[in-house]
Amino acid sequence: MLDSQRIAVIDLGSNTARLIVMAAVPGHSYRLEDEIREVVRLRQGMNEDGLSEAAMHRAFVTLRLFKRFCDSTHVDQIIATATSAVRDAANGRAFVERVQQELGLTLRILDGEREAYYGVIGALNDVALRDGAVVDIGGGSAQISLVSDRRFVQGWSAPLGALALTERFVHSDPIGDDEFKALEQEINRTLDKVKWLPNLTGDLVGLGGTIRNLARVEARRSGYPLVTMHGFSLSLAALEQTIDALRTLPLAKRMRLPGLRSDRADIILAGALVIRAILRRSGKEALTVSVHGLREGLFFEYFWRHWAEPVIADIRGFGVLNMARVYRYHKKHANHVRFLAGRVFEQLTPLHGYGDAERELLAAAALLHDIGTLIAYDGHDVHSQTLILNGGLPGFTPRELALIGLLARYHRKSMPEPGDYASLLQPGDELLLMRLAAILRLAEYLERGRSSAVDDVAVSWNTTTLRLTLIADQYPAVEIWDTQRNALELMSRAFAREVLLDSTVAPTELG
Amino acid sequence: MLDSQRIAVIDLGSNTARLIVMAAVPGHSYRLEDEIREVVRLRQGMNEDGLSEAAMHRAFVTLRLFKRFCDSTHVDQIIATATSAVRDAANGRAFVERVQQELGLTLRILDGEREAYYGVIGALNDVALRDGAVVDIGGGSAQISLVSDRRFVQGWSAPLGALALTERFVHSDPIGDDEFKALEQEINRTLDKVKWLPNLTGDLVGLGGTIRNLARVEARRSGYPLVTMHGFSLSLAALEQTIDALRTLPLAKRMRLPGLRSDRADIILAGALVIRAILRRSGKEALTVSVHGLREGLFFEYFWRHWAEPVIADIRGFGVLNMARVYRYHKKHANHVRFLAGRVFEQLTPLHGYGDAERELLAAAALLHDIGTLIAYDGHDVHSQTLILNGGLPGFTPRELALIGLLARYHRKSMPEPGDYASLLQPGDELLLMRLAAILRLAEYLERGRSSAVDDVAVSWNTTTLRLTLIADQYPAVEIWDTQRNALELMSRAFAREVLLDSTVAPTELG
Repeated sequence: MLDSQRIAVIDLGSNTARLIVMAAVPGHSYRLEDEIREVVRLRQGMNEDGLSEAAMHRAFVTLRLFKRFCDSTHVDQIIATATSAVRDAANGRAFVERVQQELGLTLRILDGEREAYYGVIGALNDVALRDGAVVDIGGGSAQISLVSDRRFVQGWSAPLGALALTERFVHSDPIGDDEFKALEQEINRTLDKVKWLPNLTGDLVGLGGTIRNLARVEARRSGYPLVTMHGFSLSLAALEQTIDALRTLPLAKRMRLPGLRSDRADIILAGALVIRAILRRSGKEALTVSVHGLREGLFFEYFWRHWAEPVIADIRGFGVLNMARVYRYHKKHANHVRFLAGRVFEQLTPLHGYGDAERELLAAAALLHDIGTLIAYDGHDVHSQTLILNGGLPGFTPRELALIGLLARYHRKSMPEPGDYASLLQPGDELLLMRLAAILRLAEYLERGRSSAVDDVAVSWNTTTLRLTLIADQYPAVEIWDTQRNALELMSRAFAREVLLDSTVAPTELG
Repeated sequence: MLDSQRIAVIDLGSNTARLIVMAAVPGHSYRLEDEIREVVRLRQGMNEDGLSEAAMHRAFVTLRLFKRFCDSTHVDQIIATATSAVRDAANGRAFVERVQQELGLTLRILDGEREAYYGVIGALNDVALRDGAVVDIGGGSAQISLVSDRRFVQGWSAPLGALALTERFVHSDPIGDDEFKALEQEINRTLDKVKWLPNLTGDLVGLGGTIRNLARVEARRSGYPLVTMHGFSLSLAALEQTIDALRTLPLAKRMRLPGLRSDRADIILAGALVIRAILRRSGKEALTVSVHGLREGLFFEYFWRHWAEPVIADIRGFGVLNMARVYRYHKKHANHVRFLAGRVFEQLTPLHGYGDAERELLAAAALLHDIGTLIAYDGHDVHSQTLILNGGLPGFTPRELALIGLLARYHRKSMPEPGDYASLLQPGDELLLMRLAAILRLAEYLERGRSSAVDDVAVSWNTTTLRLTLIADQYPAVEIWDTQRNALELMSRAFAREVLLDSTVAPTELG
């Protein structure tokens, strides 16, 4: 990441203006480097003449600060866009021209379809959605897009943004029953136009600040053990609970609702009702949260700019590699550990009966097992787990992420335990964890010298014994010694057999 | 750290053989990269003919593995030494020659004085000892050294190693009363020869596996909140408790004593008694643990090889800088935040009344506040704290370390709280934390653009108001804006005044 560029994406929304700075080597690796968020409420007081003076002033000052920030922090590339408020305002173009002239900042106005498109591009680079719909609740508008075979098919934008709806329908605190009814009617009236929604096949994915924040509220309520919201599943049932709270509590109390951003407390109910309506109409029980949205979509168009479709096919594989690259993994060592672990895994298939899904978790953990050394050698197994669980991995479910983190945690010592993450696991996962950890640990110690000394492993067994034969050029003394000391005990527990280690090459004297 | 060398130090002790690999740019920065520990028990079965065949075989095999490990992991420099067992054995030199011939590994036999010297060099690079004594309890011998003005004066080595004493005096489990008496008598008889011990001025510092492990036991018992043992104070009272347990429990139970390494459980009592005797004789209530010892001393001789005395004078300052360098800090930004924080701190002295000690903590936190971004931008304040508290900082007390970590934690948001580290703080430290965090946060946001836009700050106040005047070339719009939003509230709480922010440069229109 040392020769990386700094790419800024500015998104002037109807409620919030956001700046993110990504450090990236296009096509290779990326990471978030900075973020600034300012509630501008650009749409507030908007009328047929367009944006209000006060709102434009707030937006202008914020954009100038963003621009100065980019200049002083040496951003190489600025991608700036404006969405529904500017798009819908009579004076929107004039505002954009003024920004261009006075700040030298080119604000690209996205039409509804484009706004939807970029949200989908962001989501497809974060969640493993193949077919279904992507919902983006903004401040001014909401976008619903149809996705087929990981491609954007069509997007539809409607004035169902949380701020826009609140301004039109909510005038008492907490919301009055009539207001609530009117709000629901308007949402239903508008959604009637989305003919394909009722018989939607596939999954629902949600993005945008409103949905992330509603997920955060549920995560807090349910004691969700992960920090990242990557792939969080927000159920209709959970949403109903939150809506009841938002509907009955006065603003002062809503602002203290655990997980809820206080500067959203006044408008989020409207957004929650839109999501509920979409869930109900599509007949889905839950939606999956994408932490990537419009801004990331714009970024990925740049990151994958040599492609027509700025979407990676194998999102999980690339996500793992991106994390490994960002944390400067030792490529040769990690690759060889992954290879050896895979060889042992596949030969043991008759014993454990696992398949591609489990193998993918093992391979991911093998590539990431040492990234914690960037923090410190002491406890690097724990640090690797921290990096994996804090960062999150695109496309993996919370359960899979927890398992990958736990595998990294137990790659060198101790008896594997789910600990805080037990609530994410399924029946049988404890045994899976022990067996995959045993295989990963074995591979790690077979590559202890970090020199690919062990070319391959031949695995054989009977009812009482498991035999591991190392194939190497010379007798791999370091590997055999450290494997004996540190890896065989867990292997023998995991596969309920005495484990024997030998080599195709004879030991030298004193070996 | 990218163009760093890999330096291995091998230490063949009487009980344990250890290999550490340091990544270092000599005179610039260093970090531990790998460590292997093998209990060889080289002294076991030693007689007038010297080391036993079995012991030499164990040692030889381990050394060969260490050598192969160094070769395969591309170590640039190997520093290998042997201590008391080889030193005292009739066949010691023969063993060293064989290692030289067969492994191409040059084992340097350290005499007692040199062994003591290197332990002191390691300790002086880890703890802020000026005058006093350094105690190193090994497997075969124990070293006691006199230190004056941060220099090694003289070292004295005696056969008081934990393994040596255990082999001579302990034959029943748990230890019999007669054995216990004989052991204490031998220790006292031997320590009588250290004439300067009874009227020792200054502090006691302890190092070596035995002492580190006894500290670990006390840390576990007392719920010590830090991971690192840097600067841990092991009191005589705590040691007495541990000795009682070690004396009465059978081996099987001792092995399960929290914090105790099971492979030391059989010999550690003897070491504990030596330390107790030294504490009693020197009339000290406690000793400070150095996590650095002989191996690090040998390393520092190489690291500081352009100096006659391989000891850094300002150990705290260098330790902070080393951590900042290892974690790739942004030098210009960190330096400017430190400068601005220092300027505010010094001008506010009449209000807070703090001095150099508090200023040093603020400066350390300023240099380290962003190192967590190496892990991730999201939550980098928390990550910075983790790195500081896990790594530990040479020369700082646990209280000081906790405060530096907490300052980094609260450098951008939230109300500072001691949390898990309250037990390490003193009365008044909560206010200190809030005030230093307020100053650090102010400096951070005054440098938000990371471009040294703010040259200086002039601070003035009356009973109700605190005024901050920014001195800059142009109006520092980004800094004023983000400081207003994020830094002034805590400043006003910390100094019980309304805080006003202005600039020597007039704002531009719309500013």
